[in-house]
Amino acid sequence: MSVTGTNNTILQNRVLVDVDIKPITRKFHLQLEPPSLLNNLADVDRLKDKLPEGFHNAYMPLPILNKVSEVLWGANWQVTVTLAQFNGIWQVIDVEPGDTSSRHYGIAVDIGTTTVVGYLVDLTTGKTLGSAADYNGQVQYGEDILTRIYLAADEGGRKKFQQAIVQTLNSLISRLINEFKISKHEISAVTVGANTTMVHLLLGLDPSRICMLPYIPVVNHPGFINAASLGLDINPLASLYCLPGVGSYVGGDIISGILASGMHKKTDLALFVDIGTNGEMVLGNSEWLTACAGAAGPALEGGVARHGMRAEPGAVYEVRIDEQTGAVHYKTVASQKPCGICGSGLVDCLAELLLAGVINRAGKFKDSNKEFTVVPASEAENNTAITFTQTDIDNIMRTKGAVNAALEYLLESVGCRFEEIETFYAAGAFGQYLDLESAVTIGLYPDLQRDRMIRLGNSSGEGARLALISEDCLREAEEISRSITYFELNASEVFMNKFVGSRFLPHTNLDYYPTVKKKMLARGLLVD
Amino acid sequence: MSVTGTNNTILQNRVLVDVDIKPITRKFHLQLEPPSLLNNLADVDRLKDKLPEGFHNAYMPLPILNKVSEVLWGANWQVTVTLAQFNGIWQVIDVEPGDTSSRHYGIAVDIGTTTVVGYLVDLTTGKTLGSAADYNGQVQYGEDILTRIYLAADEGGRKKFQQAIVQTLNSLISRLINEFKISKHEISAVTVGANTTMVHLLLGLDPSRICMLPYIPVVNHPGFINAASLGLDINPLASLYCLPGVGSYVGGDIISGILASGMHKKTDLALFVDIGTNGEMVLGNSEWLTACAGAAGPALEGGVARHGMRAEPGAVYEVRIDEQTGAVHYKTVASQKPCGICGSGLVDCLAELLLAGVINRAGKFKDSNKEFTVVPASEAENNTAITFTQTDIDNIMRTKGAVNAALEYLLESVGCRFEEIETFYAAGAFGQYLDLESAVTIGLYPDLQRDRMIRLGNSSGEGARLALISEDCLREAEEISRSITYFELNASEVFMNKFVGSRFLPHTNLDYYPTVKKKMLARGLLVD
Repeated sequence: MSVTGTNNTILQNRVLVDVDIKPITRKFHLQLEPPSLLNNLADVDRLKDKLPEGFHNAYMPLPILNKVSEVLWGANWQVTVTLAQFNGIWQVIDVEPGDTSSRHYGIAVDIGTTTVVGYLVDLTTGKTLGSAADYNGQVQYGEDILTRIYLAADEGGRKKFQQAIVQTLNSLISRLINEFKISKHEISAVTVGANTTMVHLLLGLDPSRICMLPYIPVVNHPGFINAASLGLDINPLASLYCLPGVGSYVGGDIISGILASGMHKKTDLALFVDIGTNGEMVLGNSEWLTACAGAAGPALEGGVARHGMRAEPGAVYEVRIDEQTGAVHYKTVASQKPCGICGSGLVDCLAELLLAGVINRAGKFKDSNKEFTVVPASEAENNTAITFTQTDIDNIMRTKGAVNAALEYLLESVGCRFEEIETFYAAGAFGQYLDLESAVTIGLYPDLQRDRMIRLGNSSGEGARLALISEDCLREAEEISRSITYFELNASEVFMNKFVGSRFLPHTNLDYYPTVKKKMLARGLLVD
Repeated sequence: MSVTGTNNTILQNRVLVDVDIKPITRKFHLQLEPPSLLNNLADVDRLKDKLPEGFHNAYMPLPILNKVSEVLWGANWQVTVTLAQFNGIWQVIDVEPGDTSSRHYGIAVDIGTTTVVGYLVDLTTGKTLGSAADYNGQVQYGEDILTRIYLAADEGGRKKFQQAIVQTLNSLISRLINEFKISKHEISAVTVGANTTMVHLLLGLDPSRICMLPYIPVVNHPGFINAASLGLDINPLASLYCLPGVGSYVGGDIISGILASGMHKKTDLALFVDIGTNGEMVLGNSEWLTACAGAAGPALEGGVARHGMRAEPGAVYEVRIDEQTGAVHYKTVASQKPCGICGSGLVDCLAELLLAGVINRAGKFKDSNKEFTVVPASEAENNTAITFTQTDIDNIMRTKGAVNAALEYLLESVGCRFEEIETFYAAGAFGQYLDLESAVTIGLYPDLQRDRMIRLGNSSGEGARLALISEDCLREAEEISRSITYFELNASEVFMNKFVGSRFLPHTNLDYYPTVKKKMLARGLLVD
């Protein structure tokens, strides 16, 4: 099964971060000297002594102690050892006869609330060989995250959600290893980019307090966990590493995204935004990082708007209103007959209506209309017109408002001004498909030089890949998560509504949006 | 059940090695600040942050992640954390409500081929609270070590031996914790002093190659193993640490003994000897250590001599021949009617016969007798005279010969002379009960000033206790095992027989044994 509307690609072809390949698992082919009376080291010591510098103290767990002698004596002292990082020590997770060092693989995973994407990574090159996506198996028990948190309050519920996501992961891994003819035990590690709730549900931890004041998760840095103990069907000694989070609403997916963007290593002031049900936002540079999350609301997720829908076949994902004729042009996913509007289509609608002069900067229809027809009944599936309503606009304005307010809050807290933002990163699937111009026009994104506005795609998966192929990146992720100043804004929605920027399109202060101002002037929508 | 003739005491009352109490597990009582919007650390981070310096990076495994929040929130943020060393990292193995830091225990174990002794240690003081001993449950499947190695060649056999010893350990632990009203989960660690084969059988590893040329064990440094995975019924996250060995015939029990003696930290040249079926011997000081093991043979173990027996009730353990009258005085274990002679009695016999002029320095009866009556039939159980035969003498001479030869080998290899040995340590139960004068008289022990001859008792158990209560000692044990020069003498029994010292009592060169020479001169047994 494949998921439509999901960004299955990873940044491998336009990597923003250069890394030395130093994966969190290693394979070494060793040629040992056979034992003799004059060279009577124990089998294990003989093997460890031959490991490269820095690995001599590797820990050998019981299952490996149990098989190492048989392999050594049977393979004429030519073996390949697989070592894995495990919370600061190296652990031997496999000893194979002969030279198998070229067969060295890991899985990077982005666990989203709705969609899960797995990437098969060749750990000798660092490259992604292939990817597979599927719905998060937890969806069957609860579509939205709050329902899941509620149902996971008791142990039975937690068990169910854990099994569901593990089943999804196993199925993705199975598809990938079958496709690339890899065997289970050759998968040495799994890294996960996921929000805090998804990490809790994966590990079977109680997420209840994530949504209760003062919003305290059980853990932000779970570190390495034995993958088999969770039920993952790979090398039984492989570990699973969850990218660390900062708090209940800025999780490992965001840290993963920062890692993938490289903003934590650059001097220019950058803004990283991931808009979903929550809008997570990180502002900073190599000197400091600050983050917050605001309840953006589900306005852009498709489920709320009158004719909203997920980005599935038939969803209107692009809308243009001809400046001259006022004619509406739209495109649908898979070019099927339109049956609703997905998030990017909704943003397009709002932007185009503003630029067409149908609504004013306050987001109100100028005439007495209370809705705008995007697709007439005659063209639509089910012969029902697809419209964009005043309520839809108000909802999107609230989302945009939350994002604006959060940004203003961050800027104020660090004493920076809006104009000082030099680079902008849009994370996530939504950020990938959203029309950049429309997002700027409605003020969801800042109005920067377009080449300083970077779509990261699935940066949660990309960060997981980086942590998989580079110990340094993994360490950086830990450092990022510990150094970020995190503001919990969930408790102060009221406060956010005070912010002024959110009341108008694209912003109360139009000077922050020079290209939008220019367009509106050109169309005679503003008095200069 | 208690084992007769076993040294159940440990060196606690005459500790040779002073250590700072820095146990391999720690308990810290923490008073945490409750979370708030302004202090919204995750539960785990909140707890780790409050740990003392050096423990912040402690690893928290899944079972603890699963319960930590409930404990923290339920205990009003007052908890006690138990941490355990685990192959170079600290691991959280328990989180309890309130202050339980004073209830902190470990078990030190000496696993002998025949007898197992467990010591309950209070890890807050380092003191032994009590001990318990029992036969090694493996005895039922094979009394001697070679039989066990043979039977453990297949997995079924290994399983059986592992279960047997684990059952013995669980039963000892159960007795100890019941006696001292301690609960299972309060036992945080187990340390083990045991020979290489016993370690293999405990861990379920194939010991086959231990007794096959070139005598290669699977492992000498097994490190920390999760105790529950072996079946030990204590804190499920506690680990078991086996004192490291040097080779197939110089195991963790010997390293444990060196640790307990402290010879590795002193400048004087010391000789450490542990005589059982194998005679293990370590020569050295703080600069260097060298070791070897010779097949001493079971001559002193009681099972070989015509009337030999274990040190059980009725065993003659002390024999004296009156210099004037020639009358034989003996003592038996538990003062019961004599039914045989145990090891210390056999050594006494040989020494007394030499000093009484009944045998010559070559160990031969001077008259035509081929045996000596120790206990006349009238005094003995079953009305059978208990005798000491020429064959018995020859066997003990061979054992003594192996010990002498091994020592000569070690001395020669390091370029030292016999007279340079300054301190002597006798390890093990046999060393504890053997009469020092008799052992010197027959040349089994060197003839040093008596206050430089130290009986260590159960030094294998004592070393295990030291590794339990002191990280430094544990590190020293690892260093000792890696720095020792080990000679495998099993392959060269023939060669040992070449050595000259073994042919005569106490030694070919009588000048090495001044006190014995003096005694013999006084009795007119030597022509000056």
